[in-house]
Order: sequence, then structure tokens, then C-alpha cells
Amino acid sequence: MAEAPENPKHTIAVLVENKFGVLSRVAGLFSARGYNIESLSVGETLDPSVSRMTLVVAGDAFVIEQVMKQLHKLIDVIKVINLSEETHVEREMLLIRVNAEPAARAEILRVVDIFRAKVVDVTAASYTLEVTGEESKIEAILELLRPFGIQEVVRTGKVAIARSPKMRLRRVEEKLGKAAPARPASQDPRVVGFAD
Amino acid sequence: MAEAPENPKHTIAVLVENKFGVLSRVAGLFSARGYNIESLSVGETLDPSVSRMTLVVAGDAFVIEQVMKQLHKLIDVIKVINLSEETHVEREMLLIRVNAEPAARAEILRVVDIFRAKVVDVTAASYTLEVTGEESKIEAILELLRPFGIQEVVRTGKVAIARSPKMRLRRVEEKLGKAAPARPASQDPRVVGFAD
Repeated sequence: MAEAPENPKHTIAVLVENKFGVLSRVAGLFSARGYNIESLSVGETLDPSVSRMTLVVAGDAFVIEQVMKQLHKLIDVIKVINLSEETHVEREMLLIRVNAEPAARAEILRVVDIFRAKVVDVTAASYTLEVTGEESKIEAILELLRPFGIQEVVRTGKVAIARSPKMRLRRVEEKLGKAAPARPASQDPRVVGFAD
Repeated sequence: MAEAPENPKHTIAVLVENKFGVLSRVAGLFSARGYNIESLSVGETLDPSVSRMTLVVAGDAFVIEQVMKQLHKLIDVIKVINLSEETHVEREMLLIRVNAEPAARAEILRVVDIFRAKVVDVTAASYTLEVTGEESKIEAILELLRPFGIQEVVRTGKVAIARSPKMRLRRVEEKLGKAAPARPASQDPRVVGFAD
């Protein structure tokens, strides 16, 4: 909110020990610098003692770099990756409860179909939908459903996963003798990527 | 992690002003009491100046009640709801990149079909899948995919939405002259709920 729009968004993954206090220390590191965390999600990894946080922060690249270095130094922080610097898949989930008068139901279900959403609950007067996708898709379905009357909205923060294992990427970089530039997914010859 | 298993899990929704520092203050309130936040997700609401946090915390009901009261008192906190006390829909999203040797692909795609998952990316040696559902479903697909070799896993925290508008629920409670007990979804005659 406080940042100028020219500041690019960074999607940062942080692996942390699953202990109390870690979350507020990590969040505090950003807020102490006046950086607002635009989206955050925290979930378990395969190892239940380790959690993975995905943060989206808008800010000057130099300062983000510094915050990442300080994150590295935090006890209980295992790994910090700036996913914006490599090809990755980004997703978000939306739960939305929308008015569903009998006359409106057919049209709402058409929207559900087009967006490959799911109806996860229905009452006499409402549908609850689950939608996943990139931010632009989430924004688009919100706009389409707004005229029906939105009762409630919950969004997970963004989660992101690298397109290829980091190890392999690093080997390619070493071979080239330099860091490979981050390419948009569609230009990456190593992957056949498709959105849902 | 630190709690005894007999402590029930609470799913708490907190509406907050979208300002820096709020997140770490809310998280700090739990960690100061030694409560570990098991899952957390933060996303925008329809009003971009307001964010909604969904927290899952295991703890003694009395103490959770107290923490909620203190949350209420925090500046920038607009509303606190313990969703565990009413019927609600809970969802989580998983992104998982799994080894996909040619011989394993058919079986992985069968699992994708059964779990209504989506393949969101594919490389020469891996599939990246998106799965949504309740915690038990997420755990089940993780177990099924483990033998193929899981490269990376990212989970959003849980998000939860009440089944019917709070207003209507409150009116029912007032009519009955008492708080309606939380019923499991399947026993709630007012809704026709179905899982995906």
C-alpha cells in the first residue's frame, strides 16, 4: 500500500523451523522497514518440523536483497529464495459466497464452468465457489460475480513453486559461467508449460 | 507443535487494516503465549484496504477466547471470528512437483483424475500439480505421490468461509434465545452441502 507502483513485486519463499515466534520475527523484519507484506501463506512441508512461507512484497530490488540477507541470518530460517528471479508457477485460491437467486443460478454456473471453478457449498440463497489461478484470473471472476451480490470473500495468499529443480538450474548456470536470466515461462525452451 | 494433542484446533478469521506491522502484531500475540500458528494465510478482501487472515491454532478453548479478546483490542483489527464455533467450509491448496518418468506418467495422471487435481506445469522429468481440498485429502494425495519421488511441495495455509451469512445465523440464535451449537456440516438441515 505504501509503496510507489513502480516498485516491482517480489515473491519470496522462506523455509523455517515450525516453531512459535518465527512467523512474527520474519514478518517483523519487513514491517520494521515499512514494507507491507501484500500476501502471505504458511503451510507445512513434507517434514512436519519445517514450514514454508510464501511472501509477496513490493519494493526496491536492492532493499529486498538486503532483507533477504537478514532473513538468512535469523535463527530458525533455513532457506530464502527469491522466486521472482527464476521461472515459477504462481497460484492463489479464492473462496467466495455469492447470492444465488433462482434466476441467477444458470448464469453463475456458466461462470463456474468457464473459470473451471468448483461449487463447494450451496444454501437456499447462495453458492460458495472455490477458484484457483493466477491473480488476474481471481480478479476477473470477482468482477464477473460482483453484480450478483458477493456475501463473503476469502483469498489464500499466493503460493509459488519453481518450474525446475533448483539444482538443475544451478548446473546450467555454472556451465554458462553466469547466472541465467529469468525468462518468462513461454520463452523457456526446457519446459512445456500450460496454464489451467 | 508445543501443544498436547488433546487441544482442539481453532480456525480463526481476522479482518485487519492492510497496513505494515499488523501481521507481525497479530502473530506476536499468539507467539507471546507460546501458541504456534499451525497455518496462516493472508489475502485481500473486496476492499483493498482490508485484509483477511485465516489462522489455525491448537489450544485450550479458554485461552483462545482470551487471545481473541486481545486481538479485538488491537488497533487495525476490525473483526475476529472463531469459525470453529459455526458451520464452515475449509479448504487448502497444494502445489507439488513430482518426478514423472515416462513409465510413471499414466499412474500419476490417474491419481490427478481421482483427486480432481490439475497439472499446471510439465517438464521432461516432472509434473507440477495443483490440488485443493480439506487437509485429509491433501495428506492422502501426498501419500500416494510419495513413491514417485516428490521434488517440492508448497501448501497455502487453510482458508475458511462460514456456510451462511453471519447475520442470518445470529437471527436464528436470538430466536432460540441461545447460541446455536456448532453442528457438523452434514447434520445441518439448512444447507445442502457437498464436498468436491
